[in-house]
Amino acid sequence: MNDPRGELPELFPVAGIRLGTTAAGIKRPGRSDLVVMELAPGTTSAAVFTRNAFCAAPVHVARTHLAQQAPAWLLINTGNANAGTGTPGIQAAHACCEALAALTGCNAGQVLPFSTGVIGEPLPVDRLVAALPAAVAGRSEQGWAAAARGILTTDTVPKGASRRIEVEGHTLTITGIAKGAGMIRPDMATMLAFIATDAALGQPALQRCLGAATEQSFNRITVDGDTSTNDACVLMATGQAGMPALVPGTPTHDAFSAALESLCIELAQAIVHDGEGATRFVTVTVEQGRDERECLDVAYTIAQSPLVKTALFAADPNWGRILAAVGRTGLPELAISNVEIYLDEVCIVRHGGRAADYTEAAGQAVMQRPEYCIRVRLGRGAALGQVWTCDLSYDYVKINAEYRT
Amino acid sequence: MNDPRGELPELFPVAGIRLGTTAAGIKRPGRSDLVVMELAPGTTSAAVFTRNAFCAAPVHVARTHLAQQAPAWLLINTGNANAGTGTPGIQAAHACCEALAALTGCNAGQVLPFSTGVIGEPLPVDRLVAALPAAVAGRSEQGWAAAARGILTTDTVPKGASRRIEVEGHTLTITGIAKGAGMIRPDMATMLAFIATDAALGQPALQRCLGAATEQSFNRITVDGDTSTNDACVLMATGQAGMPALVPGTPTHDAFSAALESLCIELAQAIVHDGEGATRFVTVTVEQGRDERECLDVAYTIAQSPLVKTALFAADPNWGRILAAVGRTGLPELAISNVEIYLDEVCIVRHGGRAADYTEAAGQAVMQRPEYCIRVRLGRGAALGQVWTCDLSYDYVKINAEYRT
Repeated sequence: MNDPRGELPELFPVAGIRLGTTAAGIKRPGRSDLVVMELAPGTTSAAVFTRNAFCAAPVHVARTHLAQQAPAWLLINTGNANAGTGTPGIQAAHACCEALAALTGCNAGQVLPFSTGVIGEPLPVDRLVAALPAAVAGRSEQGWAAAARGILTTDTVPKGASRRIEVEGHTLTITGIAKGAGMIRPDMATMLAFIATDAALGQPALQRCLGAATEQSFNRITVDGDTSTNDACVLMATGQAGMPALVPGTPTHDAFSAALESLCIELAQAIVHDGEGATRFVTVTVEQGRDERECLDVAYTIAQSPLVKTALFAADPNWGRILAAVGRTGLPELAISNVEIYLDEVCIVRHGGRAADYTEAAGQAVMQRPEYCIRVRLGRGAALGQVWTCDLSYDYVKINAEYRT
Repeated sequence: MNDPRGELPELFPVAGIRLGTTAAGIKRPGRSDLVVMELAPGTTSAAVFTRNAFCAAPVHVARTHLAQQAPAWLLINTGNANAGTGTPGIQAAHACCEALAALTGCNAGQVLPFSTGVIGEPLPVDRLVAALPAAVAGRSEQGWAAAARGILTTDTVPKGASRRIEVEGHTLTITGIAKGAGMIRPDMATMLAFIATDAALGQPALQRCLGAATEQSFNRITVDGDTSTNDACVLMATGQAGMPALVPGTPTHDAFSAALESLCIELAQAIVHDGEGATRFVTVTVEQGRDERECLDVAYTIAQSPLVKTALFAADPNWGRILAAVGRTGLPELAISNVEIYLDEVCIVRHGGRAADYTEAAGQAVMQRPEYCIRVRLGRGAALGQVWTCDLSYDYVKINAEYRT
């Protein structure tokens, strides 16, 4: 599990992936802000991207490049999102890809660019390009931890996770890093996340694995309900573990998928733990719905309600706000007399009103925990949906009111 | 226009409506928290209520009573919402109606109850009932301003508006009061608003007038996106101006409707001006959409984005957040190269990127105004949608983290 105090877990190298990190001075001098990842020949790659219509220039370029050929390099900068930058932004992304290609002997279409940071400012291409040789020269299979730090923006801690699984006498490794703290309500993608494995998978199988894992991880978190213009999650499979390609439907593939999903959930939860200004980590579980969609609708309505989130911050068991959020979700024919709401083990609402045995002291005791679960039972089906979120504190306002100054 | 510093405009009496206000000690001793309104015989009434599935006990009772007979009294308390209180809450609302009926000689079904305040606490019926004689005894046609103060919760200023129009040689008066500052995202209703006129209107015509006016006013504001469990807006027509009933489709009816809508907009805007912790009043106008619905979807996505709202607070022209909000609204086939965004007269985005002539200084100058407009032109149709909102400040968090303490 990611340590909220900022120590990364051990990140196992992935044979065939080398990472280089340097300081290009894109926003501030001296801090790591440029990462390159080299993918050994034969690596397959899959990605999911933001669905925000105003997606950033690098998202356009990365999506196009990925559709055309197998990537050989990823090029990631923080400090500038190259978003809302129009045609010059596209040209800037291309220029960076071309510079890395010239330096490494691949073609520009084999480079996937990613940017994160301030929206609407021109990307400082010259500074970025000038720092590429140092990043490339420093690349190493041991570079994951430095890269995890090199992609951060308002994050206070680096985020990484690693898994090793034993299958058919082989050890498969999966390692990933992610960044994100605000503008977090991923939609079919996340903030930036880069995950690699030495398993071998064909591209279609890899894309399906990634889609399934993100659906249960990055697509289940919200800090502020704002979907970024730059969200992207990439999964790379180098095949260097010495195993044949994993075949969907086999136990080995299932074991890999489960490990990948668990890793993605760890990274996604690390993003919520580091949510801007967050002081609480809250799981919102909605049970007994007619289908998963309505469970998630209720869960997100609770998780994104400013009134609920300020009550979480205050550790105030003002459960009426949770109940009001359930009520405004707009489920058809919701019988409120069947609804139950729990804070961890404490039942607060039963039959649409305060539970007879509920006490304010019991509710408050749960809400003072650093992590707990809000559990809603809708009493109308067997489906379940779960999201992870954090509270809304003074510091969220402070961080976002002062972000550019 | 309501003065943000808290002075009510002149509220003209409405013949046939008498209001009494007193302090029942429901939450705090000594502050006005109980209002009664007497409706002269012959008065027609219409109302819209919250669509929150967890609507409060008084909403249930008021809706039922209104469907059965013409109301003779409204009974309004603040300090306790009588919401999330289950069957005992319904019984409490009935008990209050019965007490007022016994005191005034009507039947309990002629009383509409309204409550606002903390959710989930039992309504202190005894204290409320004990204060009814003083409220009834003090009723007066001059009682509007006192009532405007008697219905407030976290509001910092009372909210009232009044209109007089001359039609067919008669003077018609419309006067209304409202409360609301947080949990504001009305859906087919508002926070509490009570509006009366001395015009004569049949009940169906009155209901249509109210529905049309709320659609353009209370249903166009958002402070925090949270829809209250207790929202209600009541329109009463005493018919005491000495005119025959207004007939829909006539110029006189149109003039009345226009005045009513203008009054509702004034009250709705006053709620946003007094939004919890608000330091800015912002109109979000979305033009050139395919239909009003998509314009309103974009407008609400902007108006409810925590990142946009914190930028409004900071007066930071971080327009990328506005653009990102437009992008995540999810309009099908949105051509971002056609989108333009303005802050008042300053064009910030054109062709999907920063406008060539835009300067940060120009953007900041607008955002330092206490009131301004964010205008989005979608470039794909002729429809328009507009909402009013405010910023998200430290004080919003403070007010809502400390609400119950």
